[in-house]
Amino acid sequence: MASLRPIRPSLLSPPEIPMELHAENRAKLVQSLRQFLTSSSLPLHGFVFLQGGEEQTRYCTDHAELFRQESYFAYLFGVREPGFYGAIDIATGKSILFAPRLSVDYAVWLGEIKPLSYFKERYIVNMVCYVDEIVEVLCDHYEGAGKPLLFLLHGLNTDSNKFSKPAELEDMEKFETDLNTLHPILTECRIFKSDLELALIQYANDISSEAHIEVMRKTRVGMEEYQLESIFLHHIYMYGGCRHCSYTCICATGENSSVLHYGHAAAPNDKTLKDGDMALLDMGAEYHFYGSDITCSFPVNGKFTSDQCLIYNAVLEAHNVVISTMKPGVSWVDMHKLAEKVILESLKTGGILVGDVDEMMIERLGAVFMPHGLGHFLGLDTHDPGGYAKGLERPKEPGLRSLRTVRKLQEGMVITVEPGCYFIDAVLVPAMESSNTTKFFNHEAIDRFRNFGGVRIESDVHVTSNGCKNLTKCPREIEEIEAVMAGAPWPSDDRSIHADNT
Amino acid sequence: MASLRPIRPSLLSPPEIPMELHAENRAKLVQSLRQFLTSSSLPLHGFVFLQGGEEQTRYCTDHAELFRQESYFAYLFGVREPGFYGAIDIATGKSILFAPRLSVDYAVWLGEIKPLSYFKERYIVNMVCYVDEIVEVLCDHYEGAGKPLLFLLHGLNTDSNKFSKPAELEDMEKFETDLNTLHPILTECRIFKSDLELALIQYANDISSEAHIEVMRKTRVGMEEYQLESIFLHHIYMYGGCRHCSYTCICATGENSSVLHYGHAAAPNDKTLKDGDMALLDMGAEYHFYGSDITCSFPVNGKFTSDQCLIYNAVLEAHNVVISTMKPGVSWVDMHKLAEKVILESLKTGGILVGDVDEMMIERLGAVFMPHGLGHFLGLDTHDPGGYAKGLERPKEPGLRSLRTVRKLQEGMVITVEPGCYFIDAVLVPAMESSNTTKFFNHEAIDRFRNFGGVRIESDVHVTSNGCKNLTKCPREIEEIEAVMAGAPWPSDDRSIHADNT
Repeated sequence: MASLRPIRPSLLSPPEIPMELHAENRAKLVQSLRQFLTSSSLPLHGFVFLQGGEEQTRYCTDHAELFRQESYFAYLFGVREPGFYGAIDIATGKSILFAPRLSVDYAVWLGEIKPLSYFKERYIVNMVCYVDEIVEVLCDHYEGAGKPLLFLLHGLNTDSNKFSKPAELEDMEKFETDLNTLHPILTECRIFKSDLELALIQYANDISSEAHIEVMRKTRVGMEEYQLESIFLHHIYMYGGCRHCSYTCICATGENSSVLHYGHAAAPNDKTLKDGDMALLDMGAEYHFYGSDITCSFPVNGKFTSDQCLIYNAVLEAHNVVISTMKPGVSWVDMHKLAEKVILESLKTGGILVGDVDEMMIERLGAVFMPHGLGHFLGLDTHDPGGYAKGLERPKEPGLRSLRTVRKLQEGMVITVEPGCYFIDAVLVPAMESSNTTKFFNHEAIDRFRNFGGVRIESDVHVTSNGCKNLTKCPREIEEIEAVMAGAPWPSDDRSIHADNT
Repeated sequence: MASLRPIRPSLLSPPEIPMELHAENRAKLVQSLRQFLTSSSLPLHGFVFLQGGEEQTRYCTDHAELFRQESYFAYLFGVREPGFYGAIDIATGKSILFAPRLSVDYAVWLGEIKPLSYFKERYIVNMVCYVDEIVEVLCDHYEGAGKPLLFLLHGLNTDSNKFSKPAELEDMEKFETDLNTLHPILTECRIFKSDLELALIQYANDISSEAHIEVMRKTRVGMEEYQLESIFLHHIYMYGGCRHCSYTCICATGENSSVLHYGHAAAPNDKTLKDGDMALLDMGAEYHFYGSDITCSFPVNGKFTSDQCLIYNAVLEAHNVVISTMKPGVSWVDMHKLAEKVILESLKTGGILVGDVDEMMIERLGAVFMPHGLGHFLGLDTHDPGGYAKGLERPKEPGLRSLRTVRKLQEGMVITVEPGCYFIDAVLVPAMESSNTTKFFNHEAIDRFRNFGGVRIESDVHVTSNGCKNLTKCPREIEEIEAVMAGAPWPSDDRSIHADNT
């Protein structure tokens, strides 16, 4: 197998896109909505009505940003073109797409003007009309009395603290509108992945895992961080057909690896890789809207030092223990604390911390080394919504308040498991100086790590009926990483190396 | 040299970024503004006051889009971080940047909070303060009477038909504001490139030319269009340090090559390359805000057919004749017509058209085969502003109305020369059926080209004092292209193959 590598840079190829996935999503939503309406003694009338995204230009120029569909709209309709609306008739389950009416100029500049039948066939909906026909079509199809009722999307994204924008229409006064019902129900639908959704997330994971391995193999002291990003992006697009990433690549080395969201425009992956640096690479491909979110950490020179082993294995153990514990009914807050505890215990064993780990937990010392939450839902968005459904409160304690969900695990969820251990002056120094926590630190030992940066290990995990399955297939053990970086084949044999705990 | 290729994929490396470029841009603006104020008998008081761009998130999510600075702000300050304001004191020429005050959380999630001195040194400005100090600082520095006068940026972008957004501030009532003066003067400054700007545009051209050649070499029947895009993107980032493109890559093959702005989300470079297809690849890298815009056309199988030669050479001759004619004083409208005429003559010689070319020109037949303008200013934006300065009217005739400028050429302009010849049913069929123009077509010959697509050849050209210089270094002659695609080295020797006409 190894000898084939140079001529077969990828064992994968982009799968066909199953549009029935979105038909299933629509059916699931209609069922949930009907259930809700019935239980509220409300009539089963009205339309789910969503507006798709519009193409954006850069500031006042005509520079068009590459369009990416709004995720709720993508979930229900899978439409890749901008300017659409979509409706689902709750009475009948029928779906209608409304396409923008394009000018002759469009044909010259932007391409063939596709007939409505093209969209009907491509997106497997019951009917396609033009946007300027919305009022007429929905009034015609409405089976209730009075103005047709539209269920619009309005609700809080608990990661961004922004509200989704309900569909806008000039003639909105022709309709009754309901702003409260749809968002929580549709969000809840998105949390539980169907088999077709899981297959796409698995593919995004497969191509991203392969790309991470490609990056590991090509990493050398003296390269620039952004070159690792470039190798990743090229692999997922060239061999995986992934034009979008789930998020801007984080290619942090050395001290930068303690910056949790490094890689943005003000910190643009522009450091040179130095001998002795750890690399923390958080990169994930998106395929047909569905994403992956994977972090690998390794020494850029290919050999772990004993200090690097200490921190890496602390995080790996947390990663593995959490995954082996995950199953329906388990609290995500407990998983977060479990990861913290495993890491604190390792740091104690390694002589970096001193004292009682339970006391450390009470003082929230875990949050000093891992200020972020253990993980988040993953799907059409990297931070998939629904983490704080109605009634769930965000904790106030350090570390826990960064959790993107506090739910109990349920079958069908896909959630990232991404423990980390970082040496971040902005949180470490205050903790080392605080009278409550200074006693826990071996100050001399900590000094060795002041420019260490950090380690994160992140996998995407599917909660099954009696356990969970790790969708990410990267080398994780130190000897595996060192072997792959030295040129060994991966996967090392035919079975997936991460045993599922199902 | 050829034997070195496999181990030296690029002869280039990213140059240092000269921040004095922006200091020069500011000095030029202040000089122009003072000239205007003096000639209008207005006092030399007030501040140029601009707001930089803000990071955007995707719809209601926390998915951060990769930030790219607004171009007017980038021109004057070169700032890569979001959330800044900038001021230039017209009285003294002094420049002040206002940085956002970041929270401690920023240090944990997004990176070190840099001291103001870092920005002062990096961006070579006279002073850096915080955004919340704007009112205080500007009032302190104002030398006129009454409220300080701010010259805000407000004006029309004639490519997008959108207006630039003047700086916004809570305390704007503390200032007098002028919305009319700055935009035309600043826009005019941007049109004429300094040596430092030209060096960046040249570099963006060099790395893009090299990447185009890399793509040509790797193109094979059976590949996907997006794989050509991926090869280009990888080359400019991996070896050129270019994280941004000037615009979404247009990788059109076969019939798609007649879609002028192919490659967007609704036509996403997703066709398989077929034997006999022409490829039209319009792709350009951006480096430190300055862009390139290059199109190469070639047969995907590496060998031109006689029909492909006919169309390609028609366009190449137009491209070359225009460049050899360009110099200060020449009208861009005349250049557009010259290109049209050369192409029509070639089509006549090739037996596709019949009749008198001057008559065809009167009937605007050129616009049937080239519906777009001959080219546009290039700089911080792909369609750099200023094409229709005050008093210049957009023509109404087909083809000419697509011109992004009707100005006379002047020294220091950088403008694309991008003639094309396309077979687009949406314009071709009406012309072939029109009683005015049907006689010009050899209908039988045209039929051979109905699925041909099109050819475009695009170079970036700098207007010099007595001629012009082509900044683009791609193989253009048919034998050059076929040789490079077959593996010959490029450049074929040390001199640039496109003779400047200076």
